[in-house]
Amino acid sequence: MTLTLIALEKPTADFAAVFTRNALPGAPVLIGRKRLAEPQLGAIVINNKISNVCAPDGVAASEKICAAAGQLLGLPATAILPCSTGVIGWSLPADKMLEALPTILPGLQNESVLPAAEGIVTTDLYPKVRRAEVGGGSIVGIAKGAGMIEPNLATMLIYILTDIAVPREELRAMLQRVVGPSFNSISVDSDTSTSDTVALVSSSQVPCENFTAFEAALATVCCDLAEDVVRNGEGVRHVLRVAVTNAPDETTARQLGKVVVNAPLFKCAVAGNDPNVGRLVQAIGKHVGNLPSGSFDLSKLRLHMGGIEIFANGVFQLNPQKEEALVAHLKSAELYSSIIPADGIYLPAVDYPPHERCVEISIDLGTGSASATIIGGDLTHEYVSENADYRS
Amino acid sequence: MTLTLIALEKPTADFAAVFTRNALPGAPVLIGRKRLAEPQLGAIVINNKISNVCAPDGVAASEKICAAAGQLLGLPATAILPCSTGVIGWSLPADKMLEALPTILPGLQNESVLPAAEGIVTTDLYPKVRRAEVGGGSIVGIAKGAGMIEPNLATMLIYILTDIAVPREELRAMLQRVVGPSFNSISVDSDTSTSDTVALVSSSQVPCENFTAFEAALATVCCDLAEDVVRNGEGVRHVLRVAVTNAPDETTARQLGKVVVNAPLFKCAVAGNDPNVGRLVQAIGKHVGNLPSGSFDLSKLRLHMGGIEIFANGVFQLNPQKEEALVAHLKSAELYSSIIPADGIYLPAVDYPPHERCVEISIDLGTGSASATIIGGDLTHEYVSENADYRS
Repeated sequence: MTLTLIALEKPTADFAAVFTRNALPGAPVLIGRKRLAEPQLGAIVINNKISNVCAPDGVAASEKICAAAGQLLGLPATAILPCSTGVIGWSLPADKMLEALPTILPGLQNESVLPAAEGIVTTDLYPKVRRAEVGGGSIVGIAKGAGMIEPNLATMLIYILTDIAVPREELRAMLQRVVGPSFNSISVDSDTSTSDTVALVSSSQVPCENFTAFEAALATVCCDLAEDVVRNGEGVRHVLRVAVTNAPDETTARQLGKVVVNAPLFKCAVAGNDPNVGRLVQAIGKHVGNLPSGSFDLSKLRLHMGGIEIFANGVFQLNPQKEEALVAHLKSAELYSSIIPADGIYLPAVDYPPHERCVEISIDLGTGSASATIIGGDLTHEYVSENADYRS
Repeated sequence: MTLTLIALEKPTADFAAVFTRNALPGAPVLIGRKRLAEPQLGAIVINNKISNVCAPDGVAASEKICAAAGQLLGLPATAILPCSTGVIGWSLPADKMLEALPTILPGLQNESVLPAAEGIVTTDLYPKVRRAEVGGGSIVGIAKGAGMIEPNLATMLIYILTDIAVPREELRAMLQRVVGPSFNSISVDSDTSTSDTVALVSSSQVPCENFTAFEAALATVCCDLAEDVVRNGEGVRHVLRVAVTNAPDETTARQLGKVVVNAPLFKCAVAGNDPNVGRLVQAIGKHVGNLPSGSFDLSKLRLHMGGIEIFANGVFQLNPQKEEALVAHLKSAELYSSIIPADGIYLPAVDYPPHERCVEISIDLGTGSASATIIGGDLTHEYVSENADYRS
């Protein structure tokens, strides 16, 4: 287990957080929701390996750790946000964590967030850090997350720090707005964690001259981190970017995109660089067939993959040349080749993102003016290896 | 491609069928829906390999085959039900099929449905036949289906034949009722095919003395075939049986069971004989968290796996002895051990169902009196191998 401490030089009133919508959340999420009402936040303490979800006396264990961290930092327990990620159902080793806390204090530094980004990971292949400069200050965000990823708010741990002064209420309203097109528009495996947390903390040192510019920079950091989480998703070898356009409304567009990135057969075909676009059409038809009858007209559906038209006027638009081009597009988006190991346990063959390319899918519904872009991953042997054997 | 012909000795008015709810269905489904209005059905002609979905002139191709089959049998084209399963998006080789049709006529026999059950398969490991005796006659059903299985009506091809005389309207009402707890209560991979068809045909030779007994026997055949389809599901090494009890209503119970059997992380854990029940709790919380807030109370949730209590009173009820017993339960339900092949392409190591055991999960919501039982499978390397490389 790694314990990570993010401490502010002085506590701030300007902080925001959103948490998982899972109905059986972890003890740190239950505590975190209460912290939103506190006047100030001074630190965040994070452990990996054990998520402290529905464990006996889980809330008491997390509160004990907050109290001890607060005592070391000269803060009340209520100024500490606790976070845990890892196996669901196990109890935190609270006594050992209390022993360890004083030993991490000397390691606090203000040079780099990289050690924190490295400390919070579980099955992540690499740390994820994104930064934006805005109005004389900056926004820095770190992310943990690789599996159990379909945020319904944000299935992962995200910490975003800024020196720009934005008052608490504005900060919270902005965070609510930016999570929609970022962390709520991704899925690795359709599972929603019990521990997801996005926290945004301002040290309020640089006056904010332009709220719109700040929110735009915040949105960029969030969208970049969200895509990082998918690109580093468990076993992900292809990132899928599904742009749904001309939809009747944004909710419809987002739901349809989610169904496509979560359709197992299509995900497997992508993993195999197989342009089996029939499975893409199946996924769209499955979703629309489940909606109340008459709520949707698919007669104007047009599909492209990698810029190539594959479906229009109710029929496929395919030929051998297009199939070849689709295979080339899939191969160009591959993050690494799958390697068959001697022991049969597949492992991802990268420890960094080799490129930022995606399998580009466009779904034009032709029935409105709303749109949404959803990011997801394929379904690979590496995902099964990681989750049939790994415990977290 | 295999062409299969099921012909009645004489046409009947007493037939029923339900089809996929996918909004982009295949040409045979479009035709099949119209056939329900016809006075008589005389034969069913089925091909595998190509599903004839959204292909140019797909309806015309299927109708041509019906017309040719009808001519051979002395029936109008409208008395023939066409069915296709296989790759979505490709066109039927209609000319070659027309050439082949006369050659299969001499093979018609009335001894066994096994050749038909063998003829309609694609990735199925073995043919699926179920039979029930009732009131001096019998009901015989065959099934094709292994992947793209989450019926919303019935993601597969099912043909049920009986000599018991049940009039058309009663037959159709019965079929509508029995598909709910059978074919609409299973999922292999959450994908819904564009070609699903369940057809029930009576030759009306034996008078029906007891409609209730007939419907009960029909329900047994359908439930048995539905479980067969999952047990033979692509890459399935464990069948999951999820009993949801004391739910506020049946729809809620069925939806919750579906979410559990479709949760990828829990499915992978089962594949690895890993009793990671945290992922089961995650799946339940994910679903309930997505419902309108306040619509559901999880405070009385009780979970059992293999008869062992694992969750009650808001916390896990686990200890090392229970974990060992859970592993033993998972292992006892395994259909075959996964074998790592030299070429890295996993293949299922059985060609018959070695036993009928399931991983037994019980979800007691404690908030009502409705219940539902859902059957699903795990998520394995064999599933990924089959669908990252196989084209159908």
